[in-house]
Amino acid sequence: MSGSESSAGPSAPIDVELPFETLSWVGGLDGHVTMLEQTFLPLREEQLLVRTVPEMVDAIYRLAVRGAPAIGVAAGFGMVLGIAGSDRDVLEVARETKKTLDASRPTAVNLMWATAKVLSKLESLAGSSSQEELRAAAFAEAMAIYEGDRQTCRTMGLLGAELIQDGATLLTHCNAGALATAGIGTALAPIYTAHAQGKRVHVFSDETRPLLQGARITTWELMRAGIDVTLITDSMAARVMSEGKIDAVFVGSDRITRNGDVCNKIGTFGVALAAKHHGIPFHVVAPLSTVDPYLDSGKLIPIEERPASEITEGFGNRTAPMDAKVYAPAFDVTPAELVTSIITEAGIIESPSMTGIEAALDRGGVQWRKG
Amino acid sequence: MSGSESSAGPSAPIDVELPFETLSWVGGLDGHVTMLEQTFLPLREEQLLVRTVPEMVDAIYRLAVRGAPAIGVAAGFGMVLGIAGSDRDVLEVARETKKTLDASRPTAVNLMWATAKVLSKLESLAGSSSQEELRAAAFAEAMAIYEGDRQTCRTMGLLGAELIQDGATLLTHCNAGALATAGIGTALAPIYTAHAQGKRVHVFSDETRPLLQGARITTWELMRAGIDVTLITDSMAARVMSEGKIDAVFVGSDRITRNGDVCNKIGTFGVALAAKHHGIPFHVVAPLSTVDPYLDSGKLIPIEERPASEITEGFGNRTAPMDAKVYAPAFDVTPAELVTSIITEAGIIESPSMTGIEAALDRGGVQWRKG
Repeated sequence: MSGSESSAGPSAPIDVELPFETLSWVGGLDGHVTMLEQTFLPLREEQLLVRTVPEMVDAIYRLAVRGAPAIGVAAGFGMVLGIAGSDRDVLEVARETKKTLDASRPTAVNLMWATAKVLSKLESLAGSSSQEELRAAAFAEAMAIYEGDRQTCRTMGLLGAELIQDGATLLTHCNAGALATAGIGTALAPIYTAHAQGKRVHVFSDETRPLLQGARITTWELMRAGIDVTLITDSMAARVMSEGKIDAVFVGSDRITRNGDVCNKIGTFGVALAAKHHGIPFHVVAPLSTVDPYLDSGKLIPIEERPASEITEGFGNRTAPMDAKVYAPAFDVTPAELVTSIITEAGIIESPSMTGIEAALDRGGVQWRKG
Repeated sequence: MSGSESSAGPSAPIDVELPFETLSWVGGLDGHVTMLEQTFLPLREEQLLVRTVPEMVDAIYRLAVRGAPAIGVAAGFGMVLGIAGSDRDVLEVARETKKTLDASRPTAVNLMWATAKVLSKLESLAGSSSQEELRAAAFAEAMAIYEGDRQTCRTMGLLGAELIQDGATLLTHCNAGALATAGIGTALAPIYTAHAQGKRVHVFSDETRPLLQGARITTWELMRAGIDVTLITDSMAARVMSEGKIDAVFVGSDRITRNGDVCNKIGTFGVALAAKHHGIPFHVVAPLSTVDPYLDSGKLIPIEERPASEITEGFGNRTAPMDAKVYAPAFDVTPAELVTSIITEAGIIESPSMTGIEAALDRGGVQWRKG
């Protein structure tokens, strides 16, 4: 585990090539976006070409592209589509485009973050730049978001791969893979990297009820990348661990509080409890942007509830009484005490605590202190 | 918790009436069986009349009736249908009928146990009884199996209800309810009894992937009985516990080893781990016939694997890549250390251990010592 305690790079850097791309820009300023149409997965692999802002809004709304980092990149690209597609004042078009894109999925924080990043770049340059220069700046900013996401994935992958031995069997929950980012993913980045380094790896993928992201997406992308993967139901994870099959768990996160509590897709907490019982390392892979330094504990995170129909009519048939009462929290919180490490682009935080999280934020250059 | 340590009855006996019947015999020796057609649940409630052995074989094979105790009762009834429906030699017909019924679901131990029970009764009487007397004896034996199952459920319900406070919220996994027995169930018996005693109870039911017995059956029968029930996915149990919503867990068991390890539907182990973490009592409700005194540990229990399609095409649509590899153990083993108590018809075994299990077997009059 050399290099795992600091932000220093690990020993065997390697560039991971996946045989599919979640989304990317094709051509120059007058180009377009190509993305994997995720609503067709896991049964059909098709590229979607996105050439206009309305097409991008539609793609985001329909979940053709999903996952916080990937949505951010898509929104940045969307800004360029809007600006390049108009002869009107760049700043004016940028403001309108931001509004249109932001409305496509109002709870996606990364979406607003990305459109704001492009717009404020333009605003800072508007006084001293030509329309042509502003268009070029928007393009550069969107590409920087794309490249930044890819670089973050790459760094987390290299750091996390150090924790994976040759021949290891790993378990993951939900999809924190390449298909949620423009790069090689968060939780799956160390696995892709270890595989590219020539280590043999095998992955168990929880199906992840209710929406089955594990069955539909994680299984698909790992198989597509040539990684040996076995699908199980969420309820089988503890059993599989008790059979001695799992060496480590890798999951992503939607939000990490300052004390190291980890909010992630519902079911993650149960996986962490089972891992603890069996003495199996439980790793969280997440960029520093996931850390919410203003929340002291996971107990303070409000948990979204999902519609009952996702449980009662999962994927085709009604499987519960018509008037059954349902409770469907979308996320849970894994207490820091169950987390072995948090792998960020600014190094690995072992046995996460407030001190470790704050140090990582500082190393990563994140401004977080109040006042 | 008075009376919970011995086989003495609890303080508030009460007869529980449910508004549905899993299966029962209608009429005398020339009567028939009526059962709830469980394959129509949870969307349709329909009675199935079973008048012949082939009809009973079909009902068992199609899972119109399921659950070990209920299948045993159905098989006993099936013997009577065979014997009453023929003018030929009773013993000869009984032997043929047993073979036919046993083949309907070869892994159902209770099925073989019930048909053997009726047959050996007839064999013991054949030398000294008329054909008419043998027919009557078969009928009496089948009714004894039915009544025995109902009485066992009733006793476990009364004992277990002592552990339920007014206003309690309980969690259960899979279906160990009335619909798995001829009576008020195993895991759900204490809940029905507490409800009948006037205690307010609320139940969270895990959906229980892959076959969704919790969503389809447990939710249905609790709603039908007027008990407040909320459906969740298996992956939500730990979260619900962390929200302080659960006072105790009640589950059934398929097999209990002499050291107190509990084999039950896949996912039970994860529920037990979450209960332990949150300090929530974890109760197993199972008749002594579930105890396998010749296995010293749950590690020795062979675990059946289910077909991949139950995971990949569980809900009507295909939800995983076509050639996805699947692992699907049907059961798991909860180690005795996670079990608060095992509620049997011969009393409650607290913090189960070999000593406690053996004492219960002795109290229940079970012959189990080798040699």
